[in-house]
Amino acid sequence: MKIWIPHEHGAGLMGDLPSGTTVEVLPGADAPMPSAPDGVRFWVPPFLARDDVATLAARLPDLEVVQLLSAGAEVWTGQLPAHVTLCDARGVHDSSTAEWAMTAILSHVRGFPAFGRAQAAREWSYTPTDELAGKRVLIVGAGSIGTALAARLHPFEVTVTLVARRARPDEQVHAVDALPALLPHADIVVLILPLTDTTRGLADAAFLGAMPDGALLVNAARGAIVDTEALLTEVSSGRLSAALDVTDPEPLPADHPLWTLPNVLITPHVAGSVPGHHRRAYALAGTQLHRFATGIPLENVVTDGY
Amino acid sequence: MKIWIPHEHGAGLMGDLPSGTTVEVLPGADAPMPSAPDGVRFWVPPFLARDDVATLAARLPDLEVVQLLSAGAEVWTGQLPAHVTLCDARGVHDSSTAEWAMTAILSHVRGFPAFGRAQAAREWSYTPTDELAGKRVLIVGAGSIGTALAARLHPFEVTVTLVARRARPDEQVHAVDALPALLPHADIVVLILPLTDTTRGLADAAFLGAMPDGALLVNAARGAIVDTEALLTEVSSGRLSAALDVTDPEPLPADHPLWTLPNVLITPHVAGSVPGHHRRAYALAGTQLHRFATGIPLENVVTDGY
Ligand SMILES: NC(=O)c1ccc[n+]([C@@H]2O[C@H](COP(=O)([O-])OP(=O)(O)OC[C@H]3O[C@@H](n4cnc5c(N)ncnc54)[C@H](OP(=O)(O)O)[C@@H]3O)[C@@H](O)[C@H]2O)c1
Ligand SMILES: NC(=O)c1ccc[n+]([C@@H]2O[C@H](COP(=O)([O-])OP(=O)(O)OC[C@H]3O[C@@H](n4cnc5c(N)ncnc54)[C@H](OP(=O)(O)O)[C@@H]3O)[C@@H](O)[C@H]2O)c1
Repeated sequence: MKIWIPHEHGAGLMGDLPSGTTVEVLPGADAPMPSAPDGVRFWVPPFLARDDVATLAARLPDLEVVQLLSAGAEVWTGQLPAHVTLCDARGVHDSSTAEWAMTAILSHVRGFPAFGRAQAAREWSYTPTDELAGKRVLIVGAGSIGTALAARLHPFEVTVTLVARRARPDEQVHAVDALPALLPHADIVVLILPLTDTTRGLADAAFLGAMPDGALLVNAARGAIVDTEALLTEVSSGRLSAALDVTDPEPLPADHPLWTLPNVLITPHVAGSVPGHHRRAYALAGTQLHRFATGIPLENVVTDGY
Repeated sequence: MKIWIPHEHGAGLMGDLPSGTTVEVLPGADAPMPSAPDGVRFWVPPFLARDDVATLAARLPDLEVVQLLSAGAEVWTGQLPAHVTLCDARGVHDSSTAEWAMTAILSHVRGFPAFGRAQAAREWSYTPTDELAGKRVLIVGAGSIGTALAARLHPFEVTVTLVARRARPDEQVHAVDALPALLPHADIVVLILPLTDTTRGLADAAFLGAMPDGALLVNAARGAIVDTEALLTEVSSGRLSAALDVTDPEPLPADHPLWTLPNVLITPHVAGSVPGHHRRAYALAGTQLHRFATGIPLENVVTDGY
């Protein structure tokens, strides 16, 4: 069986491959194909794949599985021929993205951006800060990353509430229609759910308006889940604060007003970009390839309901 | 019984007081005494008390208990008349100081100071960072704060090793003489132990030299536990990084070379300075006052062995 992966070093991270596997490298969707497109049954496309990769997939006549290295699949859903199974890398970003959210939350409540500015000015400016202990955290998205974040928050003496599409009462997970009732009681709201037709613009003026004065919005998911104009209104007035790893538009243009607000912290979509990412993602791809080769059902299949 | 406390609002945070208690406020060691010094049996001195408060204590003829609002007692040890019991506020800084250490560690490994500089320049500069998962953390000081920090680190997929004066094998705590063997295997070393004659200069050139290339030193304790010159050598070369809430000298003078190194993060002794501090510290003082009034042994007594 012929498979395509995007990095030369990826093969060494996939473990023992099923016998008869030929691995070839296609570093980008616009790079020359390493061989003729027929015979490729399992394809791991480049990490930061954009829309054109779906076009490429349509040119692989024997393609059966597309295994992503990313947890978000919004570029792919609805774009592949019906006989191709799409799998995301759910799980491989759990620790990295939950870590990023913890860093963002703690930096904000403990005033580290302001201390960074004081350090740049060589100023020892003793200023008490807020603290995380006692805060009420609402995590919107109770999936692989959301629950990893909840586990990391647990020892910090906070109250954690989770929201998903469907309620899971035994796990204290509420359904998304409980949001209007939950938002007014959240000091910190973390978005960590996929970008879909349903979630686009979820954090709009009404959502943000329901958050209490002084609350923090953390977006670790996708920029377009937030209505940027509505957020700008709330953070410009100083009523809310925000910590964003993702923005809409992305990259954020240099003249965008979000950059310079002291109550907004921005990082350039790096929540999942850590050394362990390739190790964990290719290990998953290797496991999936074995399942595929031996007829065991694949994991992380992205379904229509996505 | 007459007691002195440093804040007007402190009395309301101490709970019901023993009957017959008169509370008076002495906001600073150099402020006018609220009444004659005799009759004061229980004194809660100002939080950031300096050496002169011991002089003041000697002028209170009926003094029996000094209850600090701070966890560190180095300004007081050996300074009080023998019949006065010194108690620190062990416990009230656990969550705040452990939170600060987590913020410092995460900010460093996830590159937040550099992203803050990029944000100030309005630059979307995508740069993968290091991650906390997989790191080996050595906590020097396995007391109230050190164990609170270990609990917060636990869900982050790290290896945590603790060091105290005496080993506690059942709690995986090593004795301090194991440090030379442990330091070469630590990616992150956190200092959270009292400043005493034994710990002054503990993190000297040999200690720092035993840390591996690229390691991070976190000082959440007291500045003088670190040999500043030795640290400066290691961070100037870029071999080690540091995150410091406390420095020697403190405040750090504006012309000190530590301020401007990109691999050094400095905050102005704020690890314990959060809204919950007074609430927790005065609640402790109230409990201690009840113990004292009813003859129950006090807690948090700072002994000679300190
Ligand atoms: N910033 C970054 O670098 C970065 C890194 C990794 C991932 N991400 C983003 O994070 C997202 C989540 O990743 P994951 O691995 O945790 O996904 P996951 O395991 O599939 O979990 C998704 C969660 O979102 C919930 N959800 C889906 N649609 C919803 C809706 N309309 N309303 C409310 N909740 C909804 C799901 O509810 P149910 O439990 O009811 O199904 C589930 O709990 C990814 O899709 C990706 O976009 C960003
Ligand atoms: N930066 C800040 O704002 C801030 C805030 C709060 C506290 N602090 C500092 O943090 C210190 C620790 O507070 P805590 O409440 O955790 O104190 P603690 O409960 O008394 O614990 C102190 C720990 O240090 C260990 N230790 C003492 N001397 C040692 C030595 N020579 N070598 C190795 N370990 C030694 C003790 O060992 P044993 O367990 O064997 O006794 C104990 O584990 C305070 O003294 C204070 O200076 C700083």
